[in-house]
Amino acid sequence: MLDEEKPASDLRSQIEKVLFMAPFIADLGVTLVEAGPGWLETELAVVPRLRQQHGYVHAGVVTTLADHTAGAAASTEVRPGQSVLTADFTVHLLRAASGELLRCRGDVVKVGKRLIVTQADVWDGETHCARYLGTMAVVDQAL
Amino acid sequence: MLDEEKPASDLRSQIEKVLFMAPFIADLGVTLVEAGPGWLETELAVVPRLRQQHGYVHAGVVTTLADHTAGAAASTEVRPGQSVLTADFTVHLLRAASGELLRCRGDVVKVGKRLIVTQADVWDGETHCARYLGTMAVVDQAL
Amino acid sequence: MLDEEKPASDLRSQIEKVLFMAPFIADLGVTLVEAGPGWLETELAVVPRLRQQHGYVHAGVVTTLADHTAGAAASTEVRPGQSVLTADFTVHLLRAASGELLRCRGDVVKVGKRLIVTQADVWDGETHCARYLGTMAVVDQAL
Amino acid sequence: MLDEEKPASDLRSQIEKVLFMAPFIADLGVTLVEAGPGWLETELAVVPRLRQQHGYVHAGVVTTLADHTAGAAASTEVRPGQSVLTADFTVHLLRAASGELLRCRGDVVKVGKRLIVTQADVWDGETHCARYLGTMAVVDQAL
Repeated sequence: MLDEEKPASDLRSQIEKVLFMAPFIADLGVTLVEAGPGWLETELAVVPRLRQQHGYVHAGVVTTLADHTAGAAASTEVRPGQSVLTADFTVHLLRAASGELLRCRGDVVKVGKRLIVTQADVWDGETHCARYLGTMAVVDQAL
Repeated sequence: MLDEEKPASDLRSQIEKVLFMAPFIADLGVTLVEAGPGWLETELAVVPRLRQQHGYVHAGVVTTLADHTAGAAASTEVRPGQSVLTADFTVHLLRAASGELLRCRGDVVKVGKRLIVTQADVWDGETHCARYLGTMAVVDQAL
Repeated sequence: MLDEEKPASDLRSQIEKVLFMAPFIADLGVTLVEAGPGWLETELAVVPRLRQQHGYVHAGVVTTLADHTAGAAASTEVRPGQSVLTADFTVHLLRAASGELLRCRGDVVKVGKRLIVTQADVWDGETHCARYLGTMAVVDQAL
Repeated sequence: MLDEEKPASDLRSQIEKVLFMAPFIADLGVTLVEAGPGWLETELAVVPRLRQQHGYVHAGVVTTLADHTAGAAASTEVRPGQSVLTADFTVHLLRAASGELLRCRGDVVKVGKRLIVTQADVWDGETHCARYLGTMAVVDQAL
């Protein structure tokens, strides 16, 4: 659980740690925009290797951005020494993303002791590209 | 639709074209194992940059492998000049994947004129890591 | 598509027609609270036969309420002579519903020519019981 | 967990208890066909009140049959004093069901201490109508 009494800069560095410890996320180039208890905003600059055959951002990239942003939002709600693993999720790819910069917002929908339900949305400029709904399992494993 | 009268080598090269035209899939390092009408088997050698913070393969990588393999299986069922785009999917991450090589099998569950439902499973050795269920939209757009 | 120029009473009766033509929905006892273009609010009084073994409202009832409310919201966005059929959906049962009255709000997330993505939420008093995310196929079939 | 040493008739009566303690399932008219550890087959005779506006079986009915059959399959894998609650699921409605009798097969995909992943399929005669994939939470609550 985020310590809400901490100065905002500490809170941000704690979330950045959660966000970027995963090599795959650092490799894609995800960046943190803003965060608070139970939510997160991220961005991803779309380089050519992240696209699919029609030039759109690959569904796997959009999904990874949504899943990791949602997971980081969930991780602000667990106790020290705990972290989260995605149990399952659904993503609806509303519109193809063809732009250069994706934004993502992840939100906690429901916090339980063992399961946290999360939502995430991905935009390409003003275009709402994806809605994600996921279940995270709380695990007794530090980050 | 795959031309089932074609020699097997042509069929394979047609599927490889579908599979690897996506820069993101080539970048991850997915390879084709075997394929036929309505199904596909792929592999992915897991390099360090594809992992998350606990050393497991990132859920986004497992999901991308499942989605693309399922999509390629679906693309064997459409007419020339058509291709498929993922509309939505669900993935259940059954067990964490910690190994060096993932295998994936994608299958078509139902072929419709406008929607194709697909399933995919991902294994890490003998460990069943993920089950994927997806809806692909058939689009009038050549690969 | 709802005729937004029609008097509100016509709009309501059109939606009620959509909502209650399904015998199963009438049988459960769903009622319309309010509606507009792209959204709908419904209620369901929970009689004993709608519960499961622990006394909670059965997941199938919560889901049916969400699916039908979402579908009716989607049906406000199609052209005359068209209707919608659910292609697939996901529902997260956030908390068990044990009360006497469920409320549901259905919203259209994205309208396409062939697919409409919808969301629905179910409450038991102040308790948020379920979030639903669904894909509806637009079909050339009048109600 | 089912006692596999029990005579088959005990096993069947134990599953029937799980299946029919839910008033909503008894009300719909679901019946048990056959069962074993980790799987279940059920049937549902479709009376007129279970249909939707085009005469098809309502998606909510198909889904309830799948969810409850999957849940009963999962309940064969928990310890005495435990039961399962659906956390979330996805259902793909492959083809409209218009017949008089639905059959359903539920299978456990993965058993964990806290989560059980299940699959279910629904047929109308030879027509494969639905595929369901669900996550059940194991709860310390007797049936």
